[in-house]
Amino acid sequence: MATLYGYFRSSAAYRVRIALNLKGLAHDQVPVNLVKGEQRGEANLARHPLGLVPSLETDEGVTLVQSLAICEYLDEVHPTPALLPADPAGRARVRALAQLVACEIHPLNNLGVLKYLVGELGADEAAKLAWYRHWVAEGFQALEAMLTPEAGSGDFCHGDTPTLADLCLVPQVFNAERFECDLSPYPRIRRITERCRALPAFAQAAPGAPAVAGAE
Amino acid sequence: MATLYGYFRSSAAYRVRIALNLKGLAHDQVPVNLVKGEQRGEANLARHPLGLVPSLETDEGVTLVQSLAICEYLDEVHPTPALLPADPAGRARVRALAQLVACEIHPLNNLGVLKYLVGELGADEAAKLAWYRHWVAEGFQALEAMLTPEAGSGDFCHGDTPTLADLCLVPQVFNAERFECDLSPYPRIRRITERCRALPAFAQAAPGAPAVAGAE
Repeated sequence: MATLYGYFRSSAAYRVRIALNLKGLAHDQVPVNLVKGEQRGEANLARHPLGLVPSLETDEGVTLVQSLAICEYLDEVHPTPALLPADPAGRARVRALAQLVACEIHPLNNLGVLKYLVGELGADEAAKLAWYRHWVAEGFQALEAMLTPEAGSGDFCHGDTPTLADLCLVPQVFNAERFECDLSPYPRIRRITERCRALPAFAQAAPGAPAVAGAE
Repeated sequence: MATLYGYFRSSAAYRVRIALNLKGLAHDQVPVNLVKGEQRGEANLARHPLGLVPSLETDEGVTLVQSLAICEYLDEVHPTPALLPADPAGRARVRALAQLVACEIHPLNNLGVLKYLVGELGADEAAKLAWYRHWVAEGFQALEAMLTPEAGSGDFCHGDTPTLADLCLVPQVFNAERFECDLSPYPRIRRITERCRALPAFAQAAPGAPAVAGAE
Protein backbone atom coordinates (compact mmCIF):
# COMPACT_ATOMS: atom_id res chain seq x y z
CA MET A 1 0.00 0.00 0.00
CA ALA A 2 1.25 3.48 -0.87
CA THR A 3 2.10 5.91 1.93
CA LEU A 4 1.44 9.63 1.64
CA TYR A 5 3.56 11.92 3.81
CA GLY A 6 1.65 15.17 4.05
CA TYR A 7 -0.01 17.77 6.19
CA PHE A 8 -3.74 18.31 6.39
CA ARG A 9 -3.57 21.99 5.45
CA SER A 10 -0.86 21.74 2.76
CA SER A 11 -2.33 22.60 -0.64
CA ALA A 12 0.13 20.33 -2.35
CA ALA A 13 -0.66 17.32 -0.15
CA TYR A 14 -4.38 18.04 -0.58
CA ARG A 15 -3.95 17.79 -4.39
CA VAL A 16 -2.41 14.34 -4.07
CA ARG A 17 -5.11 13.16 -1.65
CA ILE A 18 -7.76 14.11 -4.20
CA ALA A 19 -5.87 12.24 -6.95
CA LEU A 20 -5.55 9.12 -4.81
CA ASN A 21 -9.25 9.27 -3.94
CA LEU A 22 -10.34 9.83 -7.55
CA LYS A 23 -8.28 6.81 -8.59
CA GLY A 24 -9.69 4.77 -5.71
CA LEU A 25 -6.19 3.98 -4.40
CA ALA A 26 -6.03 2.91 -0.77
CA HIS A 27 -3.10 4.51 1.03
CA ASP A 28 -1.65 5.17 4.46
CA GLN A 29 -1.20 8.75 5.59
CA VAL A 30 1.70 9.91 7.74
CA PRO A 31 1.40 13.50 8.99
CA VAL A 32 4.42 15.81 8.80
CA ASN A 33 3.54 18.74 11.04
CA LEU A 34 4.59 21.91 9.23
CA VAL A 35 3.79 24.18 12.15
CA LYS A 36 6.09 22.15 14.43
CA GLY A 37 8.80 22.20 11.74
CA GLU A 38 8.82 18.43 11.15
CA GLN A 39 9.36 19.06 7.42
CA ARG A 40 12.94 20.14 8.23
CA GLY A 41 13.58 17.01 10.30
CA GLU A 42 15.94 14.31 9.10
CA ALA A 43 13.22 11.85 8.17
CA ASN A 44 11.43 14.28 5.88
CA LEU A 45 14.62 15.69 4.38
CA ALA A 46 15.57 12.14 3.38
CA ARG A 47 12.33 11.99 1.42
CA HIS A 48 12.36 15.57 0.10
CA PRO A 49 15.71 17.42 0.34
CA LEU A 50 13.93 20.79 0.15
CA GLY A 51 11.94 19.91 3.26
CA LEU A 52 8.53 20.00 1.66
CA VAL A 53 5.44 17.87 1.66
CA PRO A 54 3.98 15.82 0.11
CA SER A 55 5.99 12.79 -0.77
CA LEU A 56 4.53 9.47 -1.81
CA GLU A 57 6.06 6.06 -1.22
CA THR A 58 4.57 4.02 -4.01
CA ASP A 59 3.54 0.37 -3.98
CA GLU A 60 6.65 -0.20 -6.07
CA GLY A 61 8.85 1.20 -3.26
CA VAL A 62 9.82 4.45 -5.01
CA THR A 63 9.58 7.76 -3.14
CA LEU A 64 8.16 10.54 -5.31
CA VAL A 65 8.08 14.27 -4.59
CA GLN A 66 6.43 17.42 -5.99
CA SER A 67 2.66 17.12 -6.10
CA LEU A 68 2.09 17.59 -9.84
CA ALA A 69 4.78 15.03 -10.67
CA ILE A 70 3.14 12.62 -8.23
CA CYS A 71 -0.32 13.18 -9.74
CA GLU A 72 0.98 12.63 -13.28
CA TYR A 73 2.69 9.43 -12.10
CA LEU A 74 -0.56 8.18 -10.60
CA ASP A 75 -2.32 9.03 -13.85
CA GLU A 76 0.22 7.08 -15.91
CA VAL A 77 0.26 4.01 -13.68
CA HIS A 78 -3.48 4.01 -12.92
CA PRO A 79 -5.02 5.59 -16.04
CA THR A 80 -8.69 5.38 -15.01
CA PRO A 81 -10.34 7.77 -14.38
CA ALA A 82 -8.03 10.02 -16.37
CA LEU A 83 -6.77 13.26 -14.81
CA LEU A 84 -5.84 14.64 -18.24
CA PRO A 85 -7.82 14.71 -21.49
CA ALA A 86 -6.66 12.63 -24.46
CA ASP A 87 -5.79 15.42 -26.94
CA PRO A 88 -2.45 17.25 -26.65
CA ALA A 89 -4.02 20.74 -26.78
CA GLY A 90 -6.48 19.79 -24.04
CA ARG A 91 -3.70 18.29 -21.96
CA ALA A 92 -1.67 21.48 -22.39
CA ARG A 93 -4.65 23.57 -21.30
CA VAL A 94 -5.24 21.47 -18.18
CA ARG A 95 -1.56 21.54 -17.27
CA ALA A 96 -1.45 25.30 -17.82
CA LEU A 97 -4.43 25.85 -15.52
CA ALA A 98 -2.83 23.58 -12.91
CA GLN A 99 0.50 25.38 -13.23
CA LEU A 100 -1.16 28.75 -12.97
CA VAL A 101 -2.01 27.72 -9.41
CA ALA A 102 1.08 25.61 -8.70
CA CYS A 103 3.69 27.96 -10.22
CA GLU A 104 2.13 31.42 -9.96
CA ILE A 105 -0.04 31.57 -6.83
CA HIS A 106 0.82 28.84 -4.36
CA PRO A 107 4.64 29.25 -4.26
CA LEU A 108 4.26 32.86 -3.13
CA ASN A 109 1.92 32.00 -0.32
CA ASN A 110 3.39 28.96 1.33
CA LEU A 111 4.49 28.88 4.94
CA GLY A 112 8.22 29.31 4.32
CA VAL A 113 7.66 32.45 2.25
CA LEU A 114 5.28 34.02 4.74
CA LYS A 115 7.80 33.32 7.51
CA TYR A 116 10.55 35.02 5.50
CA LEU A 117 8.36 38.09 4.92
CA VAL A 118 7.76 38.49 8.64
CA GLY A 119 11.13 37.34 9.98
CA GLU A 120 13.56 38.80 7.44
CA LEU A 121 11.66 41.67 5.85
CA GLY A 122 9.79 42.78 8.95
CA ALA A 123 6.36 42.59 7.34
CA ASP A 124 3.54 43.03 9.85
CA GLU A 125 0.32 41.03 9.85
CA ALA A 126 -1.45 43.49 7.54
CA ALA A 127 1.39 43.51 5.02
CA LYS A 128 1.55 39.71 5.07
CA LEU A 129 -2.18 39.45 4.46
CA ALA A 130 -2.02 42.03 1.65
CA TRP A 131 0.79 40.04 0.02
CA TYR A 132 -1.21 36.82 0.26
CA ARG A 133 -4.35 38.36 -1.16
CA HIS A 134 -2.47 40.17 -3.94
CA TRP A 135 -1.18 36.94 -5.50
CA VAL A 136 -4.49 35.17 -5.07
CA ALA A 137 -6.34 38.06 -6.75
CA GLU A 138 -3.91 38.30 -9.67
CA GLY A 139 -3.97 34.56 -10.24
CA PHE A 140 -7.71 34.11 -9.80
CA GLN A 141 -8.49 37.00 -12.18
CA ALA A 142 -6.45 35.20 -14.84
CA LEU A 143 -7.99 31.81 -14.06
CA GLU A 144 -11.49 33.25 -14.14
CA ALA A 145 -10.77 34.71 -17.59
CA MET A 146 -9.51 31.35 -18.80
CA LEU A 147 -12.34 29.16 -17.46
CA THR A 148 -14.80 29.86 -20.28
CA PRO A 149 -16.94 27.34 -22.14
CA GLU A 150 -15.35 28.60 -25.39
CA ALA A 151 -11.95 27.57 -24.07
CA GLY A 152 -13.20 24.15 -22.96
CA SER A 153 -14.52 24.53 -19.41
CA GLY A 154 -17.68 22.64 -18.50
CA ASP A 155 -18.85 21.35 -15.15
CA PHE A 156 -15.17 21.31 -14.23
CA CYS A 157 -12.12 23.36 -15.27
CA HIS A 158 -11.86 21.34 -18.47
CA GLY A 159 -14.88 19.44 -19.71
CA ASP A 160 -17.26 17.56 -17.48
CA THR A 161 -14.91 15.41 -15.44
CA PRO A 162 -12.32 16.44 -12.87
CA THR A 163 -8.74 16.92 -14.06
CA LEU A 164 -5.38 17.96 -12.68
CA ALA A 165 -6.60 21.57 -12.94
CA ASP A 166 -9.45 20.97 -10.46
CA LEU A 167 -7.02 19.16 -8.13
CA CYS A 168 -5.04 22.40 -7.92
CA LEU A 169 -7.93 24.84 -7.92
CA VAL A 170 -9.90 23.44 -4.99
CA PRO A 171 -7.02 23.46 -2.44
CA GLN A 172 -6.11 26.99 -3.56
CA VAL A 173 -9.70 28.12 -2.98
CA PHE A 174 -9.64 26.48 0.44
CA ASN A 175 -6.56 28.47 1.36
CA ALA A 176 -7.94 31.67 -0.12
CA GLU A 177 -11.01 31.25 2.09
CA ARG A 178 -8.78 30.67 5.09
CA PHE A 179 -7.08 34.00 4.43
CA GLU A 180 -10.46 35.63 3.83
CA CYS A 181 -9.80 36.60 0.24
CA ASP A 182 -12.79 38.12 -1.54
CA LEU A 183 -13.94 35.46 -4.01
CA SER A 184 -17.03 37.32 -5.22
CA PRO A 185 -15.36 38.44 -8.50
CA TYR A 186 -14.84 34.81 -9.55
CA PRO A 187 -18.19 33.13 -10.23
CA ARG A 188 -16.71 30.47 -12.51
CA ILE A 189 -14.08 29.50 -9.94
CA ARG A 190 -16.74 29.33 -7.23
CA ARG A 191 -19.13 27.27 -9.34
CA ILE A 192 -16.47 24.73 -10.32
CA THR A 193 -15.21 24.51 -6.74
CA GLU A 194 -18.71 23.77 -5.44
CA ARG A 195 -19.16 21.11 -8.14
CA CYS A 196 -15.88 19.48 -7.09
CA ARG A 197 -16.69 19.64 -3.40
CA ALA A 198 -19.88 17.67 -4.04
CA LEU A 199 -17.74 14.69 -5.09
CA PRO A 200 -16.65 12.32 -2.28
CA ALA A 201 -13.08 12.18 -3.67
CA PHE A 202 -12.72 15.92 -3.05
CA ALA A 203 -14.78 16.08 0.14
CA GLN A 204 -12.85 13.25 1.79
CA ALA A 205 -9.52 14.91 0.92
CA ALA A 206 -10.40 18.27 2.46
CA PRO A 207 -8.34 19.46 5.44
CA GLY A 208 -11.18 19.06 7.94
CA ALA A 209 -12.34 15.64 6.73
CA PRO A 210 -12.22 12.68 9.12
CA ALA A 211 -10.27 10.66 6.51
CA VAL A 212 -7.38 13.13 6.62
CA ALA A 213 -4.67 12.31 9.14
CA GLY A 214 -3.09 14.84 11.47
CA ALA A 215 -5.74 17.56 11.54
CA GLU A 216 -5.80 19.64 14.69
CA MET B 1 5.27 27.88 -38.43
CA ALA B 2 4.89 28.24 -34.67
CA THR B 3 5.36 31.64 -33.03
CA LEU B 4 6.96 32.04 -29.63
CA TYR B 5 6.08 35.19 -27.68
CA GLY B 6 8.84 35.62 -25.12
CA TYR B 7 11.58 37.75 -23.69
CA PHE B 8 15.25 37.02 -24.02
CA ARG B 9 15.93 37.03 -20.27
CA SER B 10 12.77 35.24 -19.15
CA SER B 11 13.66 31.85 -17.66
CA ALA B 12 10.35 30.41 -18.75
CA ALA B 13 10.72 31.56 -22.38
CA TYR B 14 14.30 30.28 -22.36
CA ARG B 15 13.02 26.80 -21.39
CA VAL B 16 10.69 26.72 -24.37
CA ARG B 17 13.41 27.96 -26.75
CA ILE B 18 15.60 25.04 -25.68
CA ALA B 19 12.73 22.60 -26.21
CA LEU B 20 11.99 23.97 -29.69
CA ASN B 21 15.69 23.75 -30.58
CA LEU B 22 16.10 20.22 -29.24
CA LYS B 23 13.10 19.13 -31.30
CA GLY B 24 14.45 20.95 -34.35
CA LEU B 25 11.24 22.96 -34.71
CA ALA B 26 11.56 26.14 -36.76
CA HIS B 27 9.65 29.03 -35.17
CA ASP B 28 9.21 32.77 -35.26
CA GLN B 29 10.03 34.78 -32.15
CA VAL B 30 8.10 37.86 -31.11
CA PRO B 31 9.65 39.78 -28.18
CA VAL B 32 7.44 40.97 -25.34
CA ASN B 33 9.57 43.49 -23.45
CA LEU B 34 9.09 42.82 -19.74
CA VAL B 35 11.09 45.86 -18.66
CA LYS B 36 8.85 48.15 -20.74
CA GLY B 37 5.75 46.41 -19.31
CA GLU B 38 4.55 45.00 -22.63
CA GLN B 39 3.44 41.83 -20.85
CA ARG B 40 0.57 43.83 -19.31
CA GLY B 41 -0.50 45.23 -22.68
CA GLU B 42 -3.71 44.15 -24.35
CA ALA B 43 -2.05 41.94 -26.96
CA ASN B 44 -0.18 39.88 -24.40
CA LEU B 45 -3.09 39.69 -21.96
CA ALA B 46 -5.18 38.21 -24.77
CA ARG B 47 -2.61 35.45 -25.03
CA HIS B 48 -1.92 35.04 -21.30
CA PRO B 49 -4.46 36.64 -18.93
CA LEU B 50 -1.91 36.73 -16.12
CA GLY B 51 0.38 38.89 -18.27
CA LEU B 52 3.25 36.44 -18.44
CA VAL B 53 5.54 35.08 -21.09
CA PRO B 54 6.02 32.77 -22.87
CA SER B 55 3.08 31.80 -24.99
CA LEU B 56 3.30 29.66 -28.10
CA GLU B 57 1.04 29.84 -31.11
CA THR B 58 1.26 26.36 -32.52
CA ASP B 59 1.21 25.26 -36.16
CA GLU B 60 -2.31 24.05 -35.39
CA GLY B 61 -3.37 27.60 -34.43
CA VAL B 62 -3.74 27.01 -30.70
CA THR B 63 -2.18 29.44 -28.22
CA LEU B 64 -0.54 27.67 -25.30
CA VAL B 65 0.74 29.17 -22.04
CA GLN B 66 2.87 28.14 -19.05
CA SER B 67 6.29 26.91 -20.09
CA LEU B 68 6.16 23.37 -18.68
CA ALA B 69 2.76 22.76 -20.25
CA ILE B 70 4.13 24.02 -23.58
CA CYS B 71 7.20 21.76 -23.33
CA GLU B 72 5.07 18.70 -22.53
CA TYR B 73 2.82 19.55 -25.50
CA LEU B 74 5.85 19.74 -27.79
CA ASP B 75 7.03 16.41 -26.41
CA GLU B 76 3.68 14.76 -27.07
CA VAL B 77 3.24 16.15 -30.60
CA HIS B 78 6.91 15.80 -31.61
CA PRO B 79 8.12 12.81 -29.57
CA THR B 80 11.72 12.69 -30.83
CA PRO B 81 14.08 13.38 -29.14
CA ALA B 82 12.13 12.69 -25.97
CA LEU B 83 12.17 15.24 -23.13
CA LEU B 84 10.96 12.63 -20.65
CA PRO B 85 12.14 9.06 -20.04
CA ALA B 86 9.85 6.14 -20.86
CA ASP B 87 9.30 4.71 -17.37
CA PRO B 88 6.75 6.33 -15.03
CA ALA B 89 9.16 6.58 -12.08
CA GLY B 90 11.79 8.23 -14.27
CA ARG B 91 9.20 10.60 -15.70
CA ALA B 92 8.10 11.50 -12.16
CA ARG B 93 11.72 12.16 -11.18
CA VAL B 94 12.35 14.41 -14.18
CA ARG B 95 9.10 16.31 -13.60
CA ALA B 96 9.95 16.70 -9.90
CA LEU B 97 13.38 18.14 -10.71
CA ALA B 98 11.80 20.50 -13.24
CA GLN B 99 9.12 21.54 -10.75
CA LEU B 100 11.68 22.09 -8.05
CA VAL B 101 12.93 24.93 -10.24
CA ALA B 102 9.61 25.98 -11.74
CA CYS B 103 7.49 25.83 -8.57
CA GLU B 104 9.97 26.43 -5.74
CA ILE B 105 12.72 28.76 -6.99
CA HIS B 106 11.69 30.69 -10.07
CA PRO B 107 8.24 31.96 -8.91
CA LEU B 108 9.84 33.73 -5.96
CA ASN B 109 12.40 35.49 -8.08
CA ASN B 110 10.52 36.74 -11.09
CA LEU B 111 10.23 40.39 -11.99
CA GLY B 112 6.73 40.97 -10.61
CA VAL B 113 7.68 39.60 -7.20
CA LEU B 114 10.89 41.61 -6.97
CA LYS B 115 8.93 44.74 -7.88
CA TYR B 116 6.39 44.02 -5.14
CA LEU B 117 9.19 43.58 -2.57
CA VAL B 118 10.64 46.96 -3.42
CA GLY B 119 7.45 48.89 -4.17
CA GLU B 120 5.05 47.55 -1.55
CA LEU B 121 7.29 46.18 1.18
CA GLY B 122 10.01 48.81 0.93
CA ALA B 123 12.84 46.30 0.50
CA ASP B 124 16.14 47.96 -0.41
CA GLU B 125 18.58 46.59 -2.97
CA ALA B 126 20.45 44.51 -0.38
CA ALA B 127 17.25 42.97 0.98
CA LYS B 128 16.05 42.19 -2.55
CA LEU B 129 19.33 40.51 -3.40
CA ALA B 130 19.31 38.52 -0.15
CA TRP B 131 15.77 37.33 -0.93
CA TYR B 132 16.80 36.27 -4.43
CA ARG B 133 19.87 34.39 -3.23
CA HIS B 134 18.03 32.76 -0.34
CA TRP B 135 15.58 30.92 -2.61
CA VAL B 136 18.27 29.99 -5.10
CA ALA B 137 20.46 28.58 -2.31
CA GLU B 138 17.62 26.60 -0.71
CA GLY B 139 16.52 25.19 -4.04
CA PHE B 140 19.98 24.45 -5.38
CA GLN B 141 21.01 22.67 -2.16
CA ALA B 142 18.04 20.35 -2.62
CA LEU B 143 18.69 19.87 -6.33
CA GLU B 144 22.36 19.14 -5.70
CA ALA B 145 21.37 16.46 -3.18
CA MET B 146 18.97 14.90 -5.70
CA LEU B 147 21.29 14.86 -8.73
CA THR B 148 23.20 11.71 -7.77
CA PRO B 149 24.10 8.79 -10.02
CA GLU B 150 22.27 6.50 -7.58
CA ALA B 151 19.07 8.45 -8.19
CA GLY B 152 19.52 8.35 -11.97
CA SER B 153 21.62 11.38 -12.95
CA GLY B 154 24.25 10.90 -15.63
CA ASP B 155 25.69 13.40 -18.07
CA PHE B 156 22.43 15.28 -17.60
CA CYS B 157 19.93 15.65 -14.73
CA HIS B 158 18.44 12.26 -15.62
CA GLY B 159 20.47 9.81 -17.67
CA ASP B 160 22.65 10.79 -20.59
CA THR B 161 20.27 12.87 -22.69
CA PRO B 162 18.68 16.24 -21.92
CA THR B 163 15.23 16.22 -20.36
CA LEU B 164 12.66 18.70 -19.09
CA ALA B 165 14.76 18.94 -15.92
CA ASP B 166 17.77 20.33 -17.81
CA LEU B 167 15.49 22.76 -19.66
CA CYS B 168 14.59 24.25 -16.28
CA LEU B 169 17.99 23.99 -14.62
CA VAL B 170 20.06 25.86 -17.21
CA PRO B 171 17.92 29.05 -17.32
CA GLN B 172 17.81 29.07 -13.52
CA VAL B 173 21.62 28.86 -13.38
CA PHE B 174 21.82 31.70 -15.92
CA ASN B 175 19.69 33.87 -13.67
CA ALA B 176 21.57 32.84 -10.54
CA GLU B 177 24.79 33.93 -12.23
CA ARG B 178 23.19 37.22 -13.18
CA PHE B 179 22.39 37.86 -9.53
CA GLU B 180 25.90 36.72 -8.57
CA CYS B 181 24.78 33.79 -6.45
CA ASP B 182 27.62 31.64 -5.16
CA LEU B 183 27.44 28.40 -7.14
CA SER B 184 30.59 26.82 -5.72
CA PRO B 185 28.63 24.50 -3.36
CA TYR B 186 26.89 22.83 -6.33
CA PRO B 187 29.43 20.87 -8.41
CA ARG B 188 26.79 18.55 -9.90
CA ILE B 189 24.62 21.46 -10.99
CA ARG B 190 27.64 23.22 -12.52
CA ARG B 191 28.86 20.09 -14.32
CA ILE B 192 25.44 19.34 -15.84
CA THR B 193 24.96 22.98 -16.83
CA GLU B 194 28.31 23.05 -18.64
CA ARG B 195 27.39 19.80 -20.41
CA CYS B 196 24.09 21.31 -21.55
CA ARG B 197 25.68 24.56 -22.67
CA ALA B 198 27.97 22.62 -25.00
CA LEU B 199 24.91 21.56 -27.01
CA PRO B 200 23.82 23.93 -29.81
CA ALA B 201 20.16 23.61 -28.76
CA PHE B 202 20.99 25.14 -25.39
CA ALA B 203 23.65 27.59 -26.62
CA GLN B 204 21.39 29.01 -29.32
CA ALA B 205 18.56 29.51 -26.82
CA ALA B 206 20.66 31.47 -24.32
CA PRO B 207 19.69 35.11 -23.66
CA GLY B 208 22.77 36.54 -25.37
CA ALA B 209 22.64 34.30 -28.45
CA PRO B 210 22.19 35.88 -31.90
CA ALA B 211 19.26 33.53 -32.59
CA VAL B 212 17.25 35.01 -29.69
CA ALA B 213 15.03 37.94 -30.63
CA GLY B 214 14.75 41.13 -28.62
CA ALA B 215 18.00 41.08 -26.65
CA GLU B 216 19.31 44.48 -25.67
